[in-house]
Amino acid sequence: MALSDVRSVPRNEQGIALVTGILKQRFGDRFQNGQAIREQHGHTTTYIPNQAPDGVVFPDSAQEVQEVVRACAEHRVPVIAFGTGTSLEGHVNAPGGGISLDTSRMNRVLAVHADDLDCIVEPGVTRQALNDYLRDTGLFFPIDPGANASLGGMAATRASGTNAVRYGTMRENVLALTAVLADGTLIRTGRRAKKSSAGYDLTRLMVGSEGTLGIITSLTLKLYGIPQAISGGVCPFPSVETACNAVIATIQSGVPVARIELVNQLQMRAMKNYSKLEYPETPCLFVEFHGSDSGVSEQAETFGEIAAEFGGGPFQWTKVAEERARLWKARHDSYWSNFTLRPGAKGLSTDVCVPISRLAECIKETEADIAEMGLIAPIVGHVGDGNFHVMVLMDPNDPAEIALTEKFVARLNRRAIAMDGTCTGEHGIGQGKVGFLEYEIGAGVEVMRAIKATLDPHGILNPGKIF
Amino acid sequence: MALSDVRSVPRNEQGIALVTGILKQRFGDRFQNGQAIREQHGHTTTYIPNQAPDGVVFPDSAQEVQEVVRACAEHRVPVIAFGTGTSLEGHVNAPGGGISLDTSRMNRVLAVHADDLDCIVEPGVTRQALNDYLRDTGLFFPIDPGANASLGGMAATRASGTNAVRYGTMRENVLALTAVLADGTLIRTGRRAKKSSAGYDLTRLMVGSEGTLGIITSLTLKLYGIPQAISGGVCPFPSVETACNAVIATIQSGVPVARIELVNQLQMRAMKNYSKLEYPETPCLFVEFHGSDSGVSEQAETFGEIAAEFGGGPFQWTKVAEERARLWKARHDSYWSNFTLRPGAKGLSTDVCVPISRLAECIKETEADIAEMGLIAPIVGHVGDGNFHVMVLMDPNDPAEIALTEKFVARLNRRAIAMDGTCTGEHGIGQGKVGFLEYEIGAGVEVMRAIKATLDPHGILNPGKIF
Repeated sequence: MALSDVRSVPRNEQGIALVTGILKQRFGDRFQNGQAIREQHGHTTTYIPNQAPDGVVFPDSAQEVQEVVRACAEHRVPVIAFGTGTSLEGHVNAPGGGISLDTSRMNRVLAVHADDLDCIVEPGVTRQALNDYLRDTGLFFPIDPGANASLGGMAATRASGTNAVRYGTMRENVLALTAVLADGTLIRTGRRAKKSSAGYDLTRLMVGSEGTLGIITSLTLKLYGIPQAISGGVCPFPSVETACNAVIATIQSGVPVARIELVNQLQMRAMKNYSKLEYPETPCLFVEFHGSDSGVSEQAETFGEIAAEFGGGPFQWTKVAEERARLWKARHDSYWSNFTLRPGAKGLSTDVCVPISRLAECIKETEADIAEMGLIAPIVGHVGDGNFHVMVLMDPNDPAEIALTEKFVARLNRRAIAMDGTCTGEHGIGQGKVGFLEYEIGAGVEVMRAIKATLDPHGILNPGKIF
Repeated sequence: MALSDVRSVPRNEQGIALVTGILKQRFGDRFQNGQAIREQHGHTTTYIPNQAPDGVVFPDSAQEVQEVVRACAEHRVPVIAFGTGTSLEGHVNAPGGGISLDTSRMNRVLAVHADDLDCIVEPGVTRQALNDYLRDTGLFFPIDPGANASLGGMAATRASGTNAVRYGTMRENVLALTAVLADGTLIRTGRRAKKSSAGYDLTRLMVGSEGTLGIITSLTLKLYGIPQAISGGVCPFPSVETACNAVIATIQSGVPVARIELVNQLQMRAMKNYSKLEYPETPCLFVEFHGSDSGVSEQAETFGEIAAEFGGGPFQWTKVAEERARLWKARHDSYWSNFTLRPGAKGLSTDVCVPISRLAECIKETEADIAEMGLIAPIVGHVGDGNFHVMVLMDPNDPAEIALTEKFVARLNRRAIAMDGTCTGEHGIGQGKVGFLEYEIGAGVEVMRAIKATLDPHGILNPGKIF
């Protein structure tokens, strides 16, 4: 299957007209259906065609979400949850039209329980807004997918990012949630206990379901104490392979690394162009350690020794916040830096995740593929988890380039799956990877379909995604 | 609902007779239906009446599990997965008769991937057998529920134990699994990538489903490097409250404590009786730290300072393995030590889990309840997670004591749920807590029931449990 071969969903014109009228009357200015806002709520981050919804509603509460879903359920109209629109696989497109349910007004932090290291937030709170809110508490929420995404969207796509090697992903950090199901029922999946053996794990079922099983209306999230000290730095390596081997040895040695990011040679070139970094243009690891003052020094020293064993170094590290911030800004700006490699291009960001023992091989084969296909495509990776991203710089108006990119991504997905990995470590299936789920999971996909059919028999929740 | 009010399941005599004949012919000596072995495969660890299955089959492979399940499915006969029989809420009872599927012959470690820190095991491998197997690799599997349970059973009940505060529970440590569904289909829920956003989280759906959605036939588990150094010790406190406050402060300070166990006054008396420990008979914390040599010293010292702030101490700690082993043996023997408090009694072990800020209050109210009801019931807790156990020493032949115990457990469950906790942190619902799930989860239970009905329409997989 080609990337652009997204599932079609039939339009229910009559239902859409009815629901549009109902929501306009009920929500007034909080229902919008101008062309610009509709397109802004269709998919925007890749070359997959924008499929705009027929209207956008801005509920204020779980009860209003229930009202919207009930209206859509009655008239069999798709309803697509929308956070900040930063998902990468077409998650918010509306292939059969319908209503985009924008959670941006549901942006309250409902509770912070400092003693319990948890908080309860509405889905429209962004990760930066939460961390700003927490600033005076000494606590933080570590999951950082790069974009300032909404926490509801992050849960829905099972997002993670640079800190996952230490703090886990949204899978590990959502303690419980509330969600509105396809029939308008509001459920709570659990309470605030750190662990529970009470029945099926509905929390984890909802996390990563991409808005196809329910619309998240609140989240109970784990929080962490801001580390007493942080150290970090950059370590160049002669090759991707030596860098990956150093990562394996570091993790095996039990060093609780907080971030360990691989930047390949081309990506270093882009970052040097953009952020004026003074490192060699070879594969580098960007690392960070959290802990006590002496602990983070010890960790950095241990890492430096391991890196040297694999031919890496010099490892320059620091505890000075400003210097670290500059490095991580460069890492976070890698997306933007890539356009220095091909000004005017569009970037297609894809991700896979493999067992770490296969990582070097997977990246090397991918780099060879990129060279052979003549693509411009830098690589960055959350390599502590075996997860890496390739950003293909392409002309979205050139069908030949689209075809070539699709071929490349398909080969990458199959390569990762063949190495006992996954076609997506943190971006999700959305529309872009529908063709690979069955190849990866096999008969298990029938179980997913059965659950979907049971919980959303009319297929109104984000249709055309995942399956 | 009373604890003993377990769900009845109608017997399908004709189907049972047919399946018994089929399995006897197919499996020969690997099918047994003598009285003793049947009763041994019914529930044995509480006073809930033993409900023996009609026969026990010992498959050797996933394919044989499929054969058994298909035979049971065709004739609508219950099939109940059995690991080591150490579950605590009646999970392996056969209220409608049927076949116990004993996984003890499926005890192979199929692969150890040291670089990836994972392994693949059959469900009958016990946690001790796995750690013995791993001995030369420098790796270990940390989840330790006390009993030498099978890893399949531990996954099925979402078990955890003393190390969970640092390493998580089975929820976090099963990367993927294979399972035979109610129709005999064998599915794989994922591959070996550390993280994945590919579709619904079937792994977590199966973990904790208590054999009601599928029978686990293999598990891909996370492994960890054996820490370079371990320190640990015991710290007495003037009260449960001061001990709990020290736990909160320790965790908030970011000390990555590996184990932090509360032993209440009565439990200390029992442990002193049994293991000749030389600590005061006051609430104590048993703690352990994993890390580098200097790291574990620093952690122990930090903890000692925090404990002193809350009136605890002296904190005696050591890095000497033999001394630590003696302490933890005493902690692990707490179950047996309890019988010194009432020789000849039966122990009913129950668990709840609450947000840690409510823990002291929950334990104090529970201790008051115990005193008021005249029960003998020591308390130990995995307090880093807010999880604690009460073991009621009772005469299972005295209906008045059963009624009193049931009343106590019901009050405990409701107290924990009212404090935003759960009626079971790690034991599961089984038969014993069926009456509390709906009180805890509300409408979400209907979602669980819908999933169960979809995946097991004839209700053959461990009927009478959870719902």
